[in-house]
Amino acid sequence: MNRKNKLGTHTVRFPSLPGIASWAAVAGKKESAGPLGKYFDETYPDTTLSQKTWEQAESAMQSRALGIALEKAKLDQKSLDRIYAGDLLNQCISSSFAHKATGVPYLGLYGACSTMAQGLGLGAMTVDGGYGENIAVITSSHFCSAERQYRMPLEYGGQRPPSAQWTCTASGCAILTPNSDGPYICSATCGHIVDAGVTDANNMGAAMAPAAFDTLTALFTDTSTSPDSFDLILTGDLGALGSKILRDLCAQNGIKLGENYFDCGELIFSPSQDTHCGGSGCGCSAAVLCGKILDEVRAGRYKRMIFAGTGALHSPTEIQQGSSIPGICHAVVICGERECAL
Amino acid sequence: MNRKNKLGTHTVRFPSLPGIASWAAVAGKKESAGPLGKYFDETYPDTTLSQKTWEQAESAMQSRALGIALEKAKLDQKSLDRIYAGDLLNQCISSSFAHKATGVPYLGLYGACSTMAQGLGLGAMTVDGGYGENIAVITSSHFCSAERQYRMPLEYGGQRPPSAQWTCTASGCAILTPNSDGPYICSATCGHIVDAGVTDANNMGAAMAPAAFDTLTALFTDTSTSPDSFDLILTGDLGALGSKILRDLCAQNGIKLGENYFDCGELIFSPSQDTHCGGSGCGCSAAVLCGKILDEVRAGRYKRMIFAGTGALHSPTEIQQGSSIPGICHAVVICGERECAL
Repeated sequence: MNRKNKLGTHTVRFPSLPGIASWAAVAGKKESAGPLGKYFDETYPDTTLSQKTWEQAESAMQSRALGIALEKAKLDQKSLDRIYAGDLLNQCISSSFAHKATGVPYLGLYGACSTMAQGLGLGAMTVDGGYGENIAVITSSHFCSAERQYRMPLEYGGQRPPSAQWTCTASGCAILTPNSDGPYICSATCGHIVDAGVTDANNMGAAMAPAAFDTLTALFTDTSTSPDSFDLILTGDLGALGSKILRDLCAQNGIKLGENYFDCGELIFSPSQDTHCGGSGCGCSAAVLCGKILDEVRAGRYKRMIFAGTGALHSPTEIQQGSSIPGICHAVVICGERECAL
Repeated sequence: MNRKNKLGTHTVRFPSLPGIASWAAVAGKKESAGPLGKYFDETYPDTTLSQKTWEQAESAMQSRALGIALEKAKLDQKSLDRIYAGDLLNQCISSSFAHKATGVPYLGLYGACSTMAQGLGLGAMTVDGGYGENIAVITSSHFCSAERQYRMPLEYGGQRPPSAQWTCTASGCAILTPNSDGPYICSATCGHIVDAGVTDANNMGAAMAPAAFDTLTALFTDTSTSPDSFDLILTGDLGALGSKILRDLCAQNGIKLGENYFDCGELIFSPSQDTHCGGSGCGCSAAVLCGKILDEVRAGRYKRMIFAGTGALHSPTEIQQGSSIPGICHAVVICGERECAL
C-alpha cells in the first residue's frame, strides 16, 4: 500500500476525515470572569482545586477535562486507545501525573503553547492511519505553577511589562474518532522552529509571531489556499502584540489577514482584566478551542477554520545563559462538514 | 478507507514495514572508554564539545548525530519531512536548539529515557501512513546538564548510592523511510504510565521496571508472541537493578526472560567504570541502538528484536513535594528482513 498523504513541504492530509467526537474545557477564576467564562464546562474559584500544590491542581484540571469530554462522547476511559498530552511544566508533570492512573497508552509531547495543535495533528494521523479509534488530546497550564517556574516567585509581586501575557489556568481536551458527525480534522501543518532572536521572557508574542507566519504561509502554499479560504483563522497564543506582528509580517508579504483572524490570547480576557497582551499557556488555546470554538463549528458558524497553536520554546536555563527564545507553530484545518474539507 | 492497524490494547502494526535507512551514534569520553566505545561514530574527549555550556554541547551532539546519519543515507537536511526529537532537559532545549536552524518540521517529545522508542513508533507510523518519506528520530542526554538539573551541582561532589545510574553523554539518530533494505520497524507498543511509588531519585531502575513489565507483557499478548519469538529483547535503561527487577516480575508471572534479554544501561559501561547500576538518559538507549545493535541487525545477527525504551517521569519539583516517580515504557519490534516481520 502506498498512501501519499503529504502535501507540499509541511502539510499532511487526512483523507478519512478523523472526527472530533467531543471536547471539554475547564478554567480558573480569572478566565471564568473573562468574555468566554460561560463557555467553560467547569470553572474553579480556588486556584488549588483543593489539591496540595498548584502542580497537582493543574493535573486535576487535565483529569476533569478528560472526564467531561469522555462523558459527552459516552465513552469510558478503557475505550481510549491513546492519550496525547503535554503542558508547560518541567518534565510535563501535570500531564503525566494526571494520566498515570488511567492505564491508557500515553505519549508525552512538548511543544510549549503549540502542544494542543501538535497533539491534534498526531491524534488525527493516528485515527486516519487506522492506528487507533478513540484518541484523547489534552493540554493544560496554570498561572501559579508556570509563573513560579518560568519567571518569578508569585510572592515577589514583580511588575509585568506591557508586552507580557498572562498564563491561563485552564485545560482543554478533544476526543478524536474515525466515525463522527464532525467537526473533522482534514489536514495538519507541522511547523519548523524559528528563532527571531528575542531574549525577553516577557515578550513571547514577538518570539512566536515569525513561526506563526512561516507555518501559515506553508499551509496556504501546501493546500493552495489563502486566508479567504477560511471562515476563521485562530492563532493561540500570540497575544495582542504578537498577533499585530503576525498581521504586519503577512501584509509585508502580500497576505491579507482580514476580519476572520483572531488570537486565543486576545479572546480569553477582556482589556479591563489587566493582563496586558492577553492570555498564554498550553491551556489557553486548548480551552478557547474546546470551550467556544468547536461548539460554533458544530453549530455551523464556521465551515472551515485554521487552528494554529504557537509555542515559545522558552527555557529559563537558556535565558540565563544569554540565548534567545525560539518559536514554533503547528496548525490543523478543521471543517464542520465533509463537503468543506480541503 | 478503513485500515485496521491496531493489535490488542497497546500495539499498532506497520504493514508497509517502514525501514531504518541509516543511523548514527555519538558519545562522550566515559562512554567511549566503555565496551561499546568502538561502535560510536564520533566521540568527544571534551565534555563541552567546544561550546560555552553543557546544554549547547548536548545540542551539538544531536546535530552531529543527525548530520552523520544523513550522510550515511546520502540525504541532505532539506529532504527530511519531519524531525521527532526529545531529551531530558527542561523544555527539551537540547532538541529545540539543535534543530532550530534546520527549517525541518519539528515535533518535540517528552518520554524521559523512553523517548527514542516513542519517536521510532511515531516515526514509523508517519512513514507507514504515507505522511512523510524521510523522518529523523533523535534523542540525547548529557551527564553534566542532567545531573545539575535533576540532582546536585556537579561541584558538590555528592556520593552516589549503589542503586544510582550514570546519565550518559550521548546522542543517537535514526532515519526512517518507506523504501529501504531494512532493518524494518514492524510494530510499536505504546505503554501506559505505571507508578510503583518509588520516591528515590537515585533508584530509577525500580521506578521503571514495572512499566517495562507492563509494556512487554502487552506486546507479547497483542502480537501473540513470547520472549522466545525474539533474538534480542533490549530494554533501555533499567540498569543492573531495574533489569533484575524486570526479570523477577516476569518470572513471577510465568514469563521467562532468557539469555536474549539485555539492558542498554548495562551494556554501555563496564563494571570497572564505577557507574554503579550502569547508564541511563535519553542518549543511552539511542546510542546503544544506533551505535551497535542496528549494525548487528543489518549484518544478520538479530532477525527480530524488541527495543523497549524505559523512562522515569522524574521531576525534581514533584520529588520536593513528596510525590513518587512514575515510569513508562514504549517498545518497537525491529526485524532484519521482511520475512521476519510479525
